[in-house]
Amino acid sequence: MADEVILLNFWPSPYGMRVLIALEEKGIKYENREEDFSNKSLLLLQMNPIHKKIPVLIHNGKSICESLNIVEYIDEVWNDHSPLFPSDPYQRAQVKFWANYIDTKIYEIGFKFSKAEGEVKEAAKKEFLEGVKVLEEQLGNKPYFGGDNFGFVDVALVPLFCMFYTYTFAGKFIDDEKYPNITSWAKRCLKKESVSKSIPKEDKVKRFLEENGLSQRGH
Amino acid sequence: MADEVILLNFWPSPYGMRVLIALEEKGIKYENREEDFSNKSLLLLQMNPIHKKIPVLIHNGKSICESLNIVEYIDEVWNDHSPLFPSDPYQRAQVKFWANYIDTKIYEIGFKFSKAEGEVKEAAKKEFLEGVKVLEEQLGNKPYFGGDNFGFVDVALVPLFCMFYTYTFAGKFIDDEKYPNITSWAKRCLKKESVSKSIPKEDKVKRFLEENGLSQRGH
Repeated sequence: MADEVILLNFWPSPYGMRVLIALEEKGIKYENREEDFSNKSLLLLQMNPIHKKIPVLIHNGKSICESLNIVEYIDEVWNDHSPLFPSDPYQRAQVKFWANYIDTKIYEIGFKFSKAEGEVKEAAKKEFLEGVKVLEEQLGNKPYFGGDNFGFVDVALVPLFCMFYTYTFAGKFIDDEKYPNITSWAKRCLKKESVSKSIPKEDKVKRFLEENGLSQRGH
Repeated sequence: MADEVILLNFWPSPYGMRVLIALEEKGIKYENREEDFSNKSLLLLQMNPIHKKIPVLIHNGKSICESLNIVEYIDEVWNDHSPLFPSDPYQRAQVKFWANYIDTKIYEIGFKFSKAEGEVKEAAKKEFLEGVKVLEEQLGNKPYFGGDNFGFVDVALVPLFCMFYTYTFAGKFIDDEKYPNITSWAKRCLKKESVSKSIPKEDKVKRFLEENGLSQRGH
């Protein structure tokens, strides 16, 4: 019997994009179900009763919650090709360390920046760019954080980073010359079909933000 | 050649206690090196240059940082007995979900409670107890979160929970009658040598807090 894979998602979420990218990398057939945040489905409430948040992966009726947790699950279950983790325990621990770093220093600070104004926004921008600088050095001359292959750290970082890097309304403050490694990496990732089809185009996101009264004012 | 295992630690840290418990559970020989927070060792700065925080495990010269990451590494490397994770990917994902829940809803809120005063403290206490209630239900009648065996979720939760549960200066607000499952679990865990020798006695912690001007005022 074929696997039934359903993703409860909300397309502007970079957390949801991580799962989409992992599913595409593995070539898994899945059904993407969009949630309405003003009217969450009964299925979402049943499948993630603790946090009531997307993304949720439902695999043969069983739910897995939280984006990095889902990506790791996908890698463990569909382990016959495109591994996202190295097999060595020490290397695995390093990968998880950097994914955690990205969650706190890039995602949390990025969202803080998006919501804030004035001095708080400027402080968040500075902190975000300090995080980018650390990742710039960590990446070095490698094509991907995973080395020669696109891996877990790449999946973790690419959605939010590319949104900040490419969307003009997000401020365009990640400079190619200051951050040559990571901006080259972003361009390299965006050439991958798994990434480009999972990250929405700027005009669609801009329209969504405007329609929902969330449009960004000048940075 | 025998493994060289060094733990850079600071004894009042519940994050460090997680690692101690995992090392004890596995019966690993290790050297515990206490860090002085007002004068961090060069070794700590070299081994955790990003966060400069304990706990750090140094295994044959290589460092692993962040408590849950270290515990998972220990379980992967010393995999011949006392497994802390189930082998099934779905069950593993559930374990990681609950460990993340404990990090945010118990540890982060617990620290917020400890540092706050007035209304903020009361709100943190309420949120902490809501988290305890969720865990009370999740545990149910099982002896451990890991089922019949002490596992990763137990290691993640036990230090901070037992400090709040047993130290009288922490407020003694986790009530045996309201939370019968989890308070029985805490007593069961404290009977394990790996746990009891890793969590410091109340008078030692109280003296440390007083000497450092951190003693708790009334709740």
